[in-house]
Amino acid sequence: MGKRVVVVGGDAAGMSAASQIRRANPELAVTVYEQGAYAAYGACGIPYLISGEVDSYESLLALGADDFARRGIEVCLQHQVVAVKPGARVVEVRHGAGAVRSVRYDYLVLATGAVPVAPAWMEVSVAQVHGLRGLSDGMTVRRIIDSGQVARAVIVGTGLIGMEMAEALSKRGLQVTVIGRSQRMIFGLDRVFLEPVVRSLSDRGIELLQDQTVTGLQSQAGRVSAVVLLDRRIPADLVIVATGVRPSTALAREAGIGVGRSGGIAVSDRLKTEVPGVYAAGDCVELTHIVTGARVVAPLALTANRTGRIAGDNLAAESLGRLSAQRFRGTAGTAVTRVFDHSVACAGLDEEQARAAGFAPAVFERESRSRASYYPGGTPVYTRIVVDRRTQRLLGAQILGQEGVAGRIDVVAAALFNRMTVQQVYDLELAYAPPFGPVYDPLIEVCGRAALELGTL
Amino acid sequence: MGKRVVVVGGDAAGMSAASQIRRANPELAVTVYEQGAYAAYGACGIPYLISGEVDSYESLLALGADDFARRGIEVCLQHQVVAVKPGARVVEVRHGAGAVRSVRYDYLVLATGAVPVAPAWMEVSVAQVHGLRGLSDGMTVRRIIDSGQVARAVIVGTGLIGMEMAEALSKRGLQVTVIGRSQRMIFGLDRVFLEPVVRSLSDRGIELLQDQTVTGLQSQAGRVSAVVLLDRRIPADLVIVATGVRPSTALAREAGIGVGRSGGIAVSDRLKTEVPGVYAAGDCVELTHIVTGARVVAPLALTANRTGRIAGDNLAAESLGRLSAQRFRGTAGTAVTRVFDHSVACAGLDEEQARAAGFAPAVFERESRSRASYYPGGTPVYTRIVVDRRTQRLLGAQILGQEGVAGRIDVVAAALFNRMTVQQVYDLELAYAPPFGPVYDPLIEVCGRAALELGTL
Repeated sequence: MGKRVVVVGGDAAGMSAASQIRRANPELAVTVYEQGAYAAYGACGIPYLISGEVDSYESLLALGADDFARRGIEVCLQHQVVAVKPGARVVEVRHGAGAVRSVRYDYLVLATGAVPVAPAWMEVSVAQVHGLRGLSDGMTVRRIIDSGQVARAVIVGTGLIGMEMAEALSKRGLQVTVIGRSQRMIFGLDRVFLEPVVRSLSDRGIELLQDQTVTGLQSQAGRVSAVVLLDRRIPADLVIVATGVRPSTALAREAGIGVGRSGGIAVSDRLKTEVPGVYAAGDCVELTHIVTGARVVAPLALTANRTGRIAGDNLAAESLGRLSAQRFRGTAGTAVTRVFDHSVACAGLDEEQARAAGFAPAVFERESRSRASYYPGGTPVYTRIVVDRRTQRLLGAQILGQEGVAGRIDVVAAALFNRMTVQQVYDLELAYAPPFGPVYDPLIEVCGRAALELGTL
Repeated sequence: MGKRVVVVGGDAAGMSAASQIRRANPELAVTVYEQGAYAAYGACGIPYLISGEVDSYESLLALGADDFARRGIEVCLQHQVVAVKPGARVVEVRHGAGAVRSVRYDYLVLATGAVPVAPAWMEVSVAQVHGLRGLSDGMTVRRIIDSGQVARAVIVGTGLIGMEMAEALSKRGLQVTVIGRSQRMIFGLDRVFLEPVVRSLSDRGIELLQDQTVTGLQSQAGRVSAVVLLDRRIPADLVIVATGVRPSTALAREAGIGVGRSGGIAVSDRLKTEVPGVYAAGDCVELTHIVTGARVVAPLALTANRTGRIAGDNLAAESLGRLSAQRFRGTAGTAVTRVFDHSVACAGLDEEQARAAGFAPAVFERESRSRASYYPGGTPVYTRIVVDRRTQRLLGAQILGQEGVAGRIDVVAAALFNRMTVQQVYDLELAYAPPFGPVYDPLIEVCGRAALELGTL
């Protein structure tokens, strides 16, 4: 009889693991338990589903039940794994409100993802208050807006999801207020760097309140009516809570599977936990940071897909008595997002993180252009880099602009992977043509400036 | 008395050298002799000047005479250096049609650029037949079109300039035919890879004739009337000749300054020639290829600016008895251009070049998307990579698409600089968001496929 793999979680990491397992060892039987009603969807598309840019939730489903059946993967939706017993190699599963049953496994993949950090005031059960954990939440929010019964939305959180939701809800015609507890916004960037984004919010009538403390909600007839701050209340008939996520590790902890100081499940670069037969992947694990070597959590879509695939490949190889060549090489937290006309991107460390990691950071900033000065349609590109004074190594960068941002942060990602100095980045031969940038690319320019000032140029 | 530097050529390389020399050693007197009527202009903008996207030639002038005077640089336009005598450290200069005079130098920078490869049939002196060596040519062509006296243009050459000119002249309402001698087009790419570009030409009524031999021109009253092929004639009242360029090295050769087998002036990575006191930079020199280590010519704008700056810095350092930290680290021929809605980019080697350089090339191709599958507005991205079978090292890539092309080739440039294997490129953490690409970036995807097939994944 073939061996059985149980995968807990049917999002990016879990489904990537399941697919890779079947690809690498078709003898293994693979069952995925997903507590939600959907599997294998593009979670990053949820804001665009709400904005209407994505027509229907079906578009977000990368693969359907048929596809998985064809791949030999059994996907069980609305099945919650309530316990893992690694000694007996058993998981306890409940389907909907049914009874718990035990399922034996030979290999297990934990892909439990991340859960929203719910603020204390959110515990009150009030309608029209939503986090955005998964597709169902997104569909609910879209339905609420489609019903035409809401006019004023408050978003709590000024990070990536908060900003993407501000755009989405504004595009749907709602009056939007975004509330943050500090000056930090997307990717932890400060408001000063993000000024063009802040302006684009206010141009569209979106109110941005920072350095605020939410103390509670007000409701009428069970539905939210306002968000209460220390000194005032903001009327709202829809509240989106986007105050961050943390790895979902309850199952692992209760099963005695090690969780690291970062809060993620401890895994090797083969995505193996310390417990025999148990792998973990995606937003629930901790990974090596490519710049610092420290263990961090990095809830990114590519990382989730990739760690799932690596976990699956290593698991399959183990089942065949081999060793997989696939290992996780490190994360730099490389990310990009679009808010209205602007793109914001980051990779590696900001100044504070660099200092905390023991580097001697120097910060260099530069305003450049997205096209040659004479070529029409160019817009500003703001680049900020963090460099170690002692080694002149590039430690991280943040880029903001209307075009060419994603490509430039990818060069930074490659530079971080290769531990390049600013002199080396300055020496790169990047592509030039008038529609795509100045002769000296903004990144080359700012790295050249840094190399010069730090004395290596 | 201060020492004197003579710079021959006032384009990107010459002016970069002059500026850097003054920055690094203000004691040096710097005189630039430029044979044309303009200095320090953005040559890459000439097609956009002709198309009208750039309003006037003044926009292309990066810096004016005043700026250079302020930097302490004497710029002498319409001054042709007719001879260099390195023994006596003298150049012979003629202003316009005036007499030749001798000018002593302590240091010399040759930045003589490149000259169009003129086909034999072009020697006939016929009006309305133009190469595009410099700004004056661009202004002349624009004036001819502005006059409204031309309706049918023939462009000879299907490379970068030929294609940019096809777009420019078509945008000006001319009926355009482009003639090529082979199936090779932009960056030496074949027509099959460039099919979307070829289609965008034909959609606009531009005629593309390949595998043709031009045998001559026909003229009426001293003006061109047709381009003659082996088996037919193409009526034309304007002919643009864009059949490539080669380093302008006549001055150097006559002065006994070494010229390499590639046809460019031989220089060290400090841009020094073999002759004491003489530096050279820009399109006239040969440079080290970053993948093969061979000496090549690479007429690129960034390379011209950069080698000029490095030459200037090393010259200034030499004058101060020091050594500059600036050296040229190699070219990969990284380039990008836009033809109507498409961008085309390349870096490193194509299959043929890889084989010629002694590698065992394997080619992988992939069609992907510029945005997440569910995100509206995505378009195809075609990626082709060349990999060495023995080492799995990435040797080069070509990318074609409507968006995100320049950024992706820049990642390739960084990969080539760092001699990365396809497995390493696959392992890169590039930025993902639905508006900018699929979770697995096209480049990651094709490199992953290559690593898998070549057996390292």
